[in-house]
Amino acid sequence: MTVTRRTLLHGAIVAGAVTAAAPAAVGREPQVERWAIHEIRLDGPAQGNPFDDVQVAAIFICGDRQVRVPGFYDGDGVYRIRFSPGDLGRWTWRTASNVDALDGRAGAVRCVPAGPDNHGPVRVTRDGYHFAYADGTPFRQIGTTSYSWALQSDAKCAQTLETLRTAPFNKIRMCVFPNVPSVATDPFVRTGPGLRDWDPTRFDPAFFRRFEDRIRRLGELGIEADIILFQPYDEKRGYSDMGRADDERYLRYMAARFGAFRNVWWAMANEYDAVKSKSVADWDHLFGVLQAVDPHDRLRSIHQLNVYYDHRKPWITHASVQNGAAVLDDGRVELHRAFALKPVIFDEVCYEGNSTKRWGNLTGEEMVERFWWGAVGGAYVGHSETTQAERNADFSWLGQGGTLSGTSPPRLAFLARILGEAPRPGIDPIQAWWNYHLGGKPFEQYLRYFGSARPTEWPVVLPGRGAEALCRYRADIIDTWAMTVTPVPGVFTMARRNDYDVHDPARPTIALPGRPYMLVRLMRV
Amino acid sequence: MTVTRRTLLHGAIVAGAVTAAAPAAVGREPQVERWAIHEIRLDGPAQGNPFDDVQVAAIFICGDRQVRVPGFYDGDGVYRIRFSPGDLGRWTWRTASNVDALDGRAGAVRCVPAGPDNHGPVRVTRDGYHFAYADGTPFRQIGTTSYSWALQSDAKCAQTLETLRTAPFNKIRMCVFPNVPSVATDPFVRTGPGLRDWDPTRFDPAFFRRFEDRIRRLGELGIEADIILFQPYDEKRGYSDMGRADDERYLRYMAARFGAFRNVWWAMANEYDAVKSKSVADWDHLFGVLQAVDPHDRLRSIHQLNVYYDHRKPWITHASVQNGAAVLDDGRVELHRAFALKPVIFDEVCYEGNSTKRWGNLTGEEMVERFWWGAVGGAYVGHSETTQAERNADFSWLGQGGTLSGTSPPRLAFLARILGEAPRPGIDPIQAWWNYHLGGKPFEQYLRYFGSARPTEWPVVLPGRGAEALCRYRADIIDTWAMTVTPVPGVFTMARRNDYDVHDPARPTIALPGRPYMLVRLMRV
Repeated sequence: MTVTRRTLLHGAIVAGAVTAAAPAAVGREPQVERWAIHEIRLDGPAQGNPFDDVQVAAIFICGDRQVRVPGFYDGDGVYRIRFSPGDLGRWTWRTASNVDALDGRAGAVRCVPAGPDNHGPVRVTRDGYHFAYADGTPFRQIGTTSYSWALQSDAKCAQTLETLRTAPFNKIRMCVFPNVPSVATDPFVRTGPGLRDWDPTRFDPAFFRRFEDRIRRLGELGIEADIILFQPYDEKRGYSDMGRADDERYLRYMAARFGAFRNVWWAMANEYDAVKSKSVADWDHLFGVLQAVDPHDRLRSIHQLNVYYDHRKPWITHASVQNGAAVLDDGRVELHRAFALKPVIFDEVCYEGNSTKRWGNLTGEEMVERFWWGAVGGAYVGHSETTQAERNADFSWLGQGGTLSGTSPPRLAFLARILGEAPRPGIDPIQAWWNYHLGGKPFEQYLRYFGSARPTEWPVVLPGRGAEALCRYRADIIDTWAMTVTPVPGVFTMARRNDYDVHDPARPTIALPGRPYMLVRLMRV
Repeated sequence: MTVTRRTLLHGAIVAGAVTAAAPAAVGREPQVERWAIHEIRLDGPAQGNPFDDVQVAAIFICGDRQVRVPGFYDGDGVYRIRFSPGDLGRWTWRTASNVDALDGRAGAVRCVPAGPDNHGPVRVTRDGYHFAYADGTPFRQIGTTSYSWALQSDAKCAQTLETLRTAPFNKIRMCVFPNVPSVATDPFVRTGPGLRDWDPTRFDPAFFRRFEDRIRRLGELGIEADIILFQPYDEKRGYSDMGRADDERYLRYMAARFGAFRNVWWAMANEYDAVKSKSVADWDHLFGVLQAVDPHDRLRSIHQLNVYYDHRKPWITHASVQNGAAVLDDGRVELHRAFALKPVIFDEVCYEGNSTKRWGNLTGEEMVERFWWGAVGGAYVGHSETTQAERNADFSWLGQGGTLSGTSPPRLAFLARILGEAPRPGIDPIQAWWNYHLGGKPFEQYLRYFGSARPTEWPVVLPGRGAEALCRYRADIIDTWAMTVTPVPGVFTMARRNDYDVHDPARPTIALPGRPYMLVRLMRV
């Protein structure tokens, strides 16, 4: 069964997080659900600069597994260590710190099976090109982007969450640093009235508690938080232009504070190549830092403007791509997999909306078309919307969240439904290098998408060289815009057509209605 | 001026190579043409195994430039050191060897300007996506493949060279180790009657002298020799399945013997991922070895079957790609550049011919179409032909050379002519990520290719945001199959169409004849 996002509501992320261990607790041992959060709260020094002066971590041990989990300072003399166990059983822990008050504390926590709505973090599947939750449930990414939604007022954030509650999206890309007008703009302690007056060595815990609340609430909705760590659009404040030591401190803090949330993904940057203050070598270094400080090993990607990052680099878990034209042809989509040898998410493919800019004025049809080309090409796509009265995308869903008025979301929900009926772990391109334009899984399910073309028939020719190709299929004609699935009567019984292909000589073609955005699906009988 | 291959006939490669330095020469100093070969012949030991026992190299010095050039054993007690100077001036040299007879010999050679037909070796251009000879003359690759042509009889080789003399190709991919029935099959000294009875530690100089003759003759024709060092099709003999030390000795020998020839390119492997005995780590290692032993720093690539090699790796000078479908759309072509950030040659895109296999039965039209999509996408393409009476490609041009009977070569000559009129250093895709399907150079020349489509008109819309886009162009309608260039009367005067585009409101479209394989070329007036 494919679990849709909706069934993940009221998951155990929050419940788990309140499993707080009293430092010297005796009696009944605390429990934590697998993949939820066990948090150790410790009291320590508040003087000096705890962010720089104090190091604290806990070593968690269960059988032959040992995990070192860094902690973080949450202000007011409070330190927290957050651990999300991936293995059932009794975990003992012991802290290590350069401060006596935090050193040598010990305890234990029992990791118990996950509840029905807790599928664990999303991981890359064994085949290398798709995603699944840790319990094996497929994760078919239907993304959206709302850069600074989490930095808006509580009321606006609540509106965004309400929108997401009924929207089809299971991942949202979101910045830590504001890129549009925002309410929460100060991750660091301010030192004066100017935009640049802040101290990169001192985080403002209130900012991060607020951000954390947004991550928790997304988790309650079953939505992955794809956290954009750096981006080029905060030039006035310069948060993405700190020095290396400051960047490293920031990554340590983010990983310690948020890495235990199972719905967290790390997007190292948005448009990394537009961040003038950092070179590719800097980004590579920061990935190394992030890997070192994130024991939960959350997904890692980086998003580009003009110059593709080398997604083959070992610290990249999946390719995050900006390219509007690549998702207008399944063959182009497939090439991204061939280059990355990893899952590919086209996180930015232009947006539905009314912007005066060409990157923000897709019709709903154009938005949805990109999702389908991406899907049949074996990849995943991201949505956003720029519709706004003043045609200023900064104030739209893309910039601040709020409500959606586009026509694509219902069609993306329909896409999610069709994906839920697709093979596991996901759709693969089938003999793309021979230009069949087929996605699916050989001898099980085939998808042929036509985009804006308006064919009136399709020759049902499938690749396959052996007897295994001589299967029987039933067909559906799917209108991806009207959201209808029309079964084709009868069955297609494949016979050999030539050395490479099979077809049904009795019914070599399927009639199509001559409308755009049609999909043919063949499912083995 | 773009020099076509034809003008490179009778180049100075051979002349330069006979600049032999007598070890203790006095009197008039030898001269060598820039980029030709200065060869030092030394007499040394013939006993033992000179290939393993003797190391010899010469250090060449000219001003602050110093080059260490390894030598090689040519049998019968003869050692040779070959140097192709890239800088004019007086080069002094001194040998270093573990054998007294070869150690401490010294001399000098004066490097004089290249003759008119000597443009130097081909290098990657500064922009990163094209090729040029060392003197700056563009090199617009029109490749072919004939795997084992150089290993056939002298008569057959002569026939192949005669074919090449009038063919449009300026690069040929060719194996060292035979992959089809051949006359010269023994690079190593034989030790018995079986196919596997050979000694990897002892080269047969006669085999390599023969191969060298083929390289020289290609050089005389102005054709680059893209030498395939390993390939998966000699399994019976196992030349590509030697151990690491043997592979390294072989690369050292190849580099020392052939690296000074300015028309040599190194193709580490054909279908590397089909060579079962080597891993990607092995290939990476061998590239490191090759770089270390090749002071002439010839171009380096590797060609795949299924799994794209990571062409971003620093030892790769250009991407060598096998993919038939990628060159059916300029957008897919462009993506290869975006991934590699280097020049891209689609060295294998299926072949023109009558093979029963789908990789060898393209029509001439289909072969030529692939070249054009590659060209307008900013890359380069390779031809070959499998036509053969018994429909066995082993005995065709692809396998053994000989004659060509296909219909593509004249059209590829026509392509070369159009490329010669294209901007320097080469055609770039223009705003491919916005799907314009234009190649050329902004505000100078635009190429729009339609492949097998049969449009009857084309809207002349060009991208460009500033006043610089308001140019005037004349147009040609080019039939790439009929090889005709039909000027469109008058001029297109660009005016702003919207924020992103310009067009001529007075003549917004060009009428086209509704035939396939048409190209529109706009050239700035």
